[in-house]
Amino acid sequence: MGENRLIKISLAEINEMEKQQRVHFANSLGGFKSVGLIGTQNKSAQTNLAIIDSILHIGSNPPLFGIIFRPGVVPRHTLENILETGFYTINHINENIYKQAHQTSARYDREISEFEVTQLTPNFKNNFFAPFVGESHLQLAMEFKEKIELTINNTVLVIGEVKEVYFPEACLQNDGFLDIEKAASITCSGLDSYHKTTRIDRLSYAKPNKTITSLL
Amino acid sequence: MGENRLIKISLAEINEMEKQQRVHFANSLGGFKSVGLIGTQNKSAQTNLAIIDSILHIGSNPPLFGIIFRPGVVPRHTLENILETGFYTINHINENIYKQAHQTSARYDREISEFEVTQLTPNFKNNFFAPFVGESHLQLAMEFKEKIELTINNTVLVIGEVKEVYFPEACLQNDGFLDIEKAASITCSGLDSYHKTTRIDRLSYAKPNKTITSLL
Repeated sequence: MGENRLIKISLAEINEMEKQQRVHFANSLGGFKSVGLIGTQNKSAQTNLAIIDSILHIGSNPPLFGIIFRPGVVPRHTLENILETGFYTINHINENIYKQAHQTSARYDREISEFEVTQLTPNFKNNFFAPFVGESHLQLAMEFKEKIELTINNTVLVIGEVKEVYFPEACLQNDGFLDIEKAASITCSGLDSYHKTTRIDRLSYAKPNKTITSLL
Repeated sequence: MGENRLIKISLAEINEMEKQQRVHFANSLGGFKSVGLIGTQNKSAQTNLAIIDSILHIGSNPPLFGIIFRPGVVPRHTLENILETGFYTINHINENIYKQAHQTSARYDREISEFEVTQLTPNFKNNFFAPFVGESHLQLAMEFKEKIELTINNTVLVIGEVKEVYFPEACLQNDGFLDIEKAASITCSGLDSYHKTTRIDRLSYAKPNKTITSLL
């Protein structure tokens, strides 16, 4: 595929797109995304489940992840529950539940639990306050740490710390790497496209003047 | 794979891991990541190229993306060039260049260009200041907008606006969605694992009490 085969779209052309077209286009540009289901409940035990495609690794010591809440796009009940209770779960999506996961993006009223609607199983364990998704094979218990307003477009970055991780034992490699393909985790692109993966390679730590090698 | 097949690792156990093991583990938890090559040059025309696996979609109107710079992990020359010049490129990685992309994570001295070391092609076009990666099939021209210090762990979130997008025409669907598999874009997990993808489905916009359908 030669360089001459690429076409150009400018910011002016993006701005001229019809709104939904622009949303589809912009959401496609960053590549495949980290997608998961965020499980919460409020203090009255009303559960909530929302698909989020903006899971961001922020640090390893302590293990921190961010998620972005966009006004009007993501159900804000999830954000409210996180701020009210301080706890949430992040659950990887697999090929068996991607349709149910996608359905959680519908705008349900507050008194409706997406767990009930989608028949995904709220799983409470180890006295953690927020519900896990029973059908997910990689589950994180998260404690809220910080909320950062991104004033540039009124989005909110929520940062949390990993308290517990649940996964199939076969995923864990000696060097600490988790083979998330063994948890059947999938990825997404754009607003609505779901993809499974096939490992190409794992590569050795890169150093100047040293040839990288396959770790497989 | 039943729920009883999951094992638990707690934060205390994560904190007890050997440092590199913890980094591998924590980097694996968020799922498949948006990975790309960030192309920059400084005011003396010294080019720089760095792999980044934290590309975050922040908004569509205007189209905004964030990237995270972790102290000591990512070469800071890239961050310095972005702040000095205001411009950078984000280039998707494909199966032909993932080894070269990975090699850019080695800690080269400032006067060494990762373009030269890896023999990836710095591509200047349309008077944009920063170099694109000629071998990439999806390229974004970015203008720096804002730097946000995440004091919780001394990382920096850099937010930029998309000025131009280059891609194979066949990627673009009528509704604005870009089929990035047609640009051969790949994803990564953990620190060093690269994956190609296979589309499972595209799903219709979710609404309450409406069955979602395949868009394919």
